[in-house]
Amino acid sequence: MEKHELVIVGGNAGGIQAAICAQKHHGLKDIMVIRPEVITMVPCGIPYIYGTLGEVEKNVLPDTLLGEAKLKIGEVVSIDAKQNSVTLGSGEVIGYNKLVLATGSNPIQPPIPGIDKDNVWLVRKYPDYLKKLASAMDNASHIVIIGGGFIGVEFADECRKRGLEITVIEQLEHCLQLVCNEELCVRAEDALKAGGVNVMTGNTAKSIGGNDKVEFVELSDGSKIECDLVIIGIGVTPNTKLAVDSGIEIGTTRGIKVDEFQRTNINNIFAVGDCAEKYSFYNSEPVAVRLASEATREGKIASANIYTPQWRNIGTIGVFSTVVGKTAIAMAGLTDTQAERLGYDIVTGEAQSASKHPGTMPDAEPMRVRLTFNRRSGALLGGSACCTMTAGEVNNIMAAAIVNRMTMEQVALFPIGTHPFLTASPLAYQITDAASDALHKIRW
Amino acid sequence: MEKHELVIVGGNAGGIQAAICAQKHHGLKDIMVIRPEVITMVPCGIPYIYGTLGEVEKNVLPDTLLGEAKLKIGEVVSIDAKQNSVTLGSGEVIGYNKLVLATGSNPIQPPIPGIDKDNVWLVRKYPDYLKKLASAMDNASHIVIIGGGFIGVEFADECRKRGLEITVIEQLEHCLQLVCNEELCVRAEDALKAGGVNVMTGNTAKSIGGNDKVEFVELSDGSKIECDLVIIGIGVTPNTKLAVDSGIEIGTTRGIKVDEFQRTNINNIFAVGDCAEKYSFYNSEPVAVRLASEATREGKIASANIYTPQWRNIGTIGVFSTVVGKTAIAMAGLTDTQAERLGYDIVTGEAQSASKHPGTMPDAEPMRVRLTFNRRSGALLGGSACCTMTAGEVNNIMAAAIVNRMTMEQVALFPIGTHPFLTASPLAYQITDAASDALHKIRW
Repeated sequence: MEKHELVIVGGNAGGIQAAICAQKHHGLKDIMVIRPEVITMVPCGIPYIYGTLGEVEKNVLPDTLLGEAKLKIGEVVSIDAKQNSVTLGSGEVIGYNKLVLATGSNPIQPPIPGIDKDNVWLVRKYPDYLKKLASAMDNASHIVIIGGGFIGVEFADECRKRGLEITVIEQLEHCLQLVCNEELCVRAEDALKAGGVNVMTGNTAKSIGGNDKVEFVELSDGSKIECDLVIIGIGVTPNTKLAVDSGIEIGTTRGIKVDEFQRTNINNIFAVGDCAEKYSFYNSEPVAVRLASEATREGKIASANIYTPQWRNIGTIGVFSTVVGKTAIAMAGLTDTQAERLGYDIVTGEAQSASKHPGTMPDAEPMRVRLTFNRRSGALLGGSACCTMTAGEVNNIMAAAIVNRMTMEQVALFPIGTHPFLTASPLAYQITDAASDALHKIRW
Repeated sequence: MEKHELVIVGGNAGGIQAAICAQKHHGLKDIMVIRPEVITMVPCGIPYIYGTLGEVEKNVLPDTLLGEAKLKIGEVVSIDAKQNSVTLGSGEVIGYNKLVLATGSNPIQPPIPGIDKDNVWLVRKYPDYLKKLASAMDNASHIVIIGGGFIGVEFADECRKRGLEITVIEQLEHCLQLVCNEELCVRAEDALKAGGVNVMTGNTAKSIGGNDKVEFVELSDGSKIECDLVIIGIGVTPNTKLAVDSGIEIGTTRGIKVDEFQRTNINNIFAVGDCAEKYSFYNSEPVAVRLASEATREGKIASANIYTPQWRNIGTIGVFSTVVGKTAIAMAGLTDTQAERLGYDIVTGEAQSASKHPGTMPDAEPMRVRLTFNRRSGALLGGSACCTMTAGEVNNIMAAAIVNRMTMEQVALFPIGTHPFLTASPLAYQITDAASDALHKIRW
């Protein structure tokens, strides 16, 4: 029986990072990555295939990332935890000393009547599937996107760049509502609308109609939207079949249950990424956040810990960003609603100023930051930034402040660097000013 | 005698921020700001007047920033600390209950023979002076800039945009060497040279020659550079005349000595910004860092503390950024040389990857981060980022990590957010990867 020191099942963000880290951290050479796909997609890049990138081939994760790890294309169908081996669909058996499961997630298929009609698509990560979707779009004129989360919003914005008519259906009051404060949601919706996308919130798809092929979507309010292609992006569910079949414990948000070292309940088996349960940084309760950035973080942690626990997962805060049209939207940590649900008494602060300084610099645009603090401890709980293209990194400053439990005072007095071309003025730097704003609300 | 609860002497970054914070933090209305300039310049914007902005009028700090604080144009010539009053050049006496000194700095005038010739300019902050410099440039063909620090490099890059021949003279081996690691210095120099600027390092101006007007600069290596305008930007010295005359104590880097609450040795008198002594975040020793961002931070601290000590200054780490051509250069905290001088055993880590992901995204450019850690404690001591325009905010992430004394492991496992348009891939995010790189060097 072929045997490897470390076997990694799954070759996307979490699996690749586990392979990289095992090599760097332990100097390990005997690693095998087993994945079903011949070619792997950059997960966050998938919506961009249909507009900005233009083709599936531009969204490939290069196998060179794996370094010296061996790659096997195949599907692992079972784990024998007593024999320390996995069996592939082909019948091949491969032994392991340590096993990392990084089996990812599958798109949720809602029980909408008519979902099986032609030209109803899910957001899968297989290149062939995504190529067929591109061809189908070439012959489409109106796409209905069911789901106004990040995937739905990004698909809408990108597909609109092809000149197609686009309608987004979101069942909540706002797009992105699960992870963003209302203000941010409205900005994203406004940017979509400004780009010509129809946004229908507070509405659900009741059925998908047509003969063989989709012809319309019927909504819960009774209206019908004629269309010739439907994309469903309402979230993902952890791909845990292999784990379940092998007796590995599953958590409450349906991911593989892991401890803070990414260990499953079975010796020598670790789980990372979308297939693994996540736990909140704030209260250690399970949270259903699935992000490539979280997957890579967990991949590192698992690999560092394969021999002995070394790195502890501090938990998930949730750091999201996207761009709609020219509007960048970024959110780190808790929304106000989430914070209040966790029992925090909150105080918020806001600041807006030019993204460059003085405001007469070319391309200076308003940039806005909003911070939410725990009134009692002063600690930063969440923050949002929009709308200029530095918002993604500004978001990471807020993430750093959150994980360090920086208080209002500490954020307000944090020694930022500024430059006319690169940031706001030091007299109006958004993060420190938003913290001051919150602070001054509770001072007197 | 006119009297105000808070009098602020100086109306640039530190003074303005002190006025803002006193209003917000204490709800104080009775504030007077006294400054000599009718119009105040954005300090960091001054080099950009000569290229990107195009005119002095576009670089004005609006007086609306002062809110309800009263503004008096005049020069304070003495302080009577017993009577709690200041006297203006006009003879007018104004009483205070609390006094904040924000008198800024003056450009250093080196004892170079010929410095008094026509068309030899310092970098002063007065609009009239700066306008005259602009007119002088209109009639110039070759400018020699003495000093290759941030001011010199920025003037060189901007003046070059006017189509003039530019030569920068730097006495150290590299431009920016006092605050940047060598790699960063070389990138800045390369960007200057690529833009057509002559960069002469390891050389000093021995004399400035010509009849009334400058005609050449003679260097220490004996060479002569013909030119018709000279700009001297070799640093600033704290403007402490008023403080010295009033018996206020001065520190070893020649700034007004202050404690961690920005208090001077005299009751009810505070000092902030370029005129005040700065102390290192790392070891509390005096450091000669003069930055508008530091000034605003100190302005906030002083105003919060006028009645009772509330906010403590954690010290200066030094967070710098600039842009040369299209190359952004950013540095937070200690250079390797500085770190070693402070006695740290250091370990460094580096990472470079595309600024967007996948690397096939439009305008994706290599972005590089280098981090320096204390080998013993693991704490981040300094970091640099280049060359894309998000480097300024990436620098602020590093600043946040430094002030929180994040370790290699914490930085490597820090939960960043990523997005195709906004950041590197989560599989190759520069800050976390640079920390991993450092970590893996010392693991085995």
